[in-house]
Amino acid sequence: MRSYSYMHLGEDIDRDAHVICRYRVTTDLPIEKAAEALAAEQSTGTWTGISTLDERIFAEYGAKIIGIEGDNVVLAFPEEDFSIEVGGIPQILSVIAGNLFGLESLRGVRLEDVEFPSGIRKKYKGPKFGADGLRKILNRPEKPLVGTIVKPKIGLSPKDTARYVYEAGSGGLTNSKDDETLVDQAFCPIEDRTKAVAESLDRLSEEGHEMVHAVNVSTNGDRIVQLAEDVQSWGARQIMVDVITCGFAAVQALSEDPKIKIPVHVHRTMHGAFTKDPLHGISMLPVTKLVRMCGGDALHIGTLGAGKMAGNVKGDHENLDACLTKDSPYRTVMPVCSGGVYPGMVARMVRTSGFNVQIQAGGGVAGHPGGVRKGAMGMSQAVDAVFEGIDVKVYAETHPELKEALDTWGFK
Amino acid sequence: MRSYSYMHLGEDIDRDAHVICRYRVTTDLPIEKAAEALAAEQSTGTWTGISTLDERIFAEYGAKIIGIEGDNVVLAFPEEDFSIEVGGIPQILSVIAGNLFGLESLRGVRLEDVEFPSGIRKKYKGPKFGADGLRKILNRPEKPLVGTIVKPKIGLSPKDTARYVYEAGSGGLTNSKDDETLVDQAFCPIEDRTKAVAESLDRLSEEGHEMVHAVNVSTNGDRIVQLAEDVQSWGARQIMVDVITCGFAAVQALSEDPKIKIPVHVHRTMHGAFTKDPLHGISMLPVTKLVRMCGGDALHIGTLGAGKMAGNVKGDHENLDACLTKDSPYRTVMPVCSGGVYPGMVARMVRTSGFNVQIQAGGGVAGHPGGVRKGAMGMSQAVDAVFEGIDVKVYAETHPELKEALDTWGFK
Repeated sequence: MRSYSYMHLGEDIDRDAHVICRYRVTTDLPIEKAAEALAAEQSTGTWTGISTLDERIFAEYGAKIIGIEGDNVVLAFPEEDFSIEVGGIPQILSVIAGNLFGLESLRGVRLEDVEFPSGIRKKYKGPKFGADGLRKILNRPEKPLVGTIVKPKIGLSPKDTARYVYEAGSGGLTNSKDDETLVDQAFCPIEDRTKAVAESLDRLSEEGHEMVHAVNVSTNGDRIVQLAEDVQSWGARQIMVDVITCGFAAVQALSEDPKIKIPVHVHRTMHGAFTKDPLHGISMLPVTKLVRMCGGDALHIGTLGAGKMAGNVKGDHENLDACLTKDSPYRTVMPVCSGGVYPGMVARMVRTSGFNVQIQAGGGVAGHPGGVRKGAMGMSQAVDAVFEGIDVKVYAETHPELKEALDTWGFK
Repeated sequence: MRSYSYMHLGEDIDRDAHVICRYRVTTDLPIEKAAEALAAEQSTGTWTGISTLDERIFAEYGAKIIGIEGDNVVLAFPEEDFSIEVGGIPQILSVIAGNLFGLESLRGVRLEDVEFPSGIRKKYKGPKFGADGLRKILNRPEKPLVGTIVKPKIGLSPKDTARYVYEAGSGGLTNSKDDETLVDQAFCPIEDRTKAVAESLDRLSEEGHEMVHAVNVSTNGDRIVQLAEDVQSWGARQIMVDVITCGFAAVQALSEDPKIKIPVHVHRTMHGAFTKDPLHGISMLPVTKLVRMCGGDALHIGTLGAGKMAGNVKGDHENLDACLTKDSPYRTVMPVCSGGVYPGMVARMVRTSGFNVQIQAGGGVAGHPGGVRKGAMGMSQAVDAVFEGIDVKVYAETHPELKEALDTWGFK
């Protein structure tokens, strides 16, 4: 039993025949040893030499260590290691983000980035609508989209939810959505809620304002497509799925289902369980790339350094880029900034994000002293101000709803 | 807009009407403030007071803080917060393990334990076979089960895989399995592999030895049940699923499918992304409890303090207990100790685990200098030794395959 070296530094690797992953590694070992352990565990090796591994298997299927820089290790996994037709994203994750997190020899390891070869990419269709499709539905070609999350998260009846959505739309918002924990509780059955909200949206349409509301269909993978089809038949204009709890395959199934003709809004609740530690877990960037491949039309990316949710500005901007960068053949994904947002934050966010973004406020709308409609007006006005290049405090002088919002949350 | 207090310390809460969660919290805030933020974010609140939350909604659906001890916070979520029929485990996770991980006010938060009320438990059937069912299939009522993972993880052909399984069975092993990254790659198509392995198992049966091999069906949630039914029709005696990458709902769908009449072996690859940090993420205990509810018949629990995978002895023992404790109406789950196991570790593990356990070695079988069959014999002999209460070094004096294994891995 000989041992094999996974080291290929400086050698020429056909990048389009490999899945390329960058890991950040924290270890007491020399980094080369740690890289070998990583490459072995995730491809053809294990913790000891084995009699059943031969030169051919090692050469064809072994991961290659193609880069080591500081604490970063770059591995190239041969395309043949992946089971694409059957296996899907779960199998991809088992290779690029599987057992490695438990390796005793690494104190920490974080999957920072991934690039897929064209052979795998062509199996994934990307967004059916994307950022442009969403804008077309909303008849809003340039301005940032501006939305709300119905609050409280849980507890409102279908009628109260529909009233919230109508008030939000009347105040100028283009988007609203269920929060991530609301699906089909007894106090707000999904059929009744969807139908009631559809009436609000129809009423707004009649009044000349286009708006979509994302109905949360997060559920088991063997049932989610049927639920989404039902929800669409009840009048939904958009569906929402929690990608981490439901899985990437759920996003893919919803996006690829030919009967579903409405965009998929992707929430990322639970991601913080593995994205928060800068030295261990998975960064959002691979998550964003996978969501785009699987067909999410809009995705939460963070608040670019502001808001109630921990994040890092650099990471959020990487996500933004991964949503919007030209990445043929995939359509762009509408990046959604959400989490503790209120009108005073809008200018700061949009100045760094650009206009191709969806800004969402839950508490920043429902927490307005004048109620939901005035809260929505405050948010819309904040977006209008930044779009028109006017300082928000100046704009507030002639827009009392905005002024009240800025005062409420102590904006200076 | 008033603010609401989630604090219910010392008040009487009907535990069987709530989902009870224990979190470990790391924060610069007073712990009571942190607990309030947690309870608010995961139930009816957000980061600011809102006009749409009223006393009734707060009282009925707000999480209750029922315990604070050191850095531990215990929350009780009203049963009504959960969407069980539609929503399933994804919705449960969004409440008990969702946005909270990103809260800016917490430096770290870890879901340590969860208890479900009978109203939710009765919706989940638990294992169809469980530990006892597996033993019955294998005609092995008392001894620890002893298995292997076919190594290398990837690269072997169906024929080589089948030969490995036959050799392993001839050496006395009761179990084998695909590794977590093998599904349906071109070098080893799942249909050919399953059929070839089935022939090996049939041959072993004819020779008087019962063995099962878990075929990895990990794939998208909308396809996994069909794949498992196919695999069963090709002769599989057990199926395997990666629960973290495929989701708990996949385990549930496989277990509840009336056409599937073989046990479900549950692998946990990727769990380390969120279980490794003792101050953040999710501990394995809630994962184990959910797998049992969803119907996993066997589950990887760690190596009780030994092996290549990081873990903690206390945590592994909690998982073991969660698999085997009386927890009516659920059958027990066969706990699987795997990851860097070799014959020299067996006695130490089994002395703490007891005999109701499945010990698995990949490298510890395939790494034997005499090949797979002798490697399997070494592992079987190690299990026999501990079952018979004989010191492994004494046993090795009359069992050369065991002796060679102990020598190979430097056991003293």
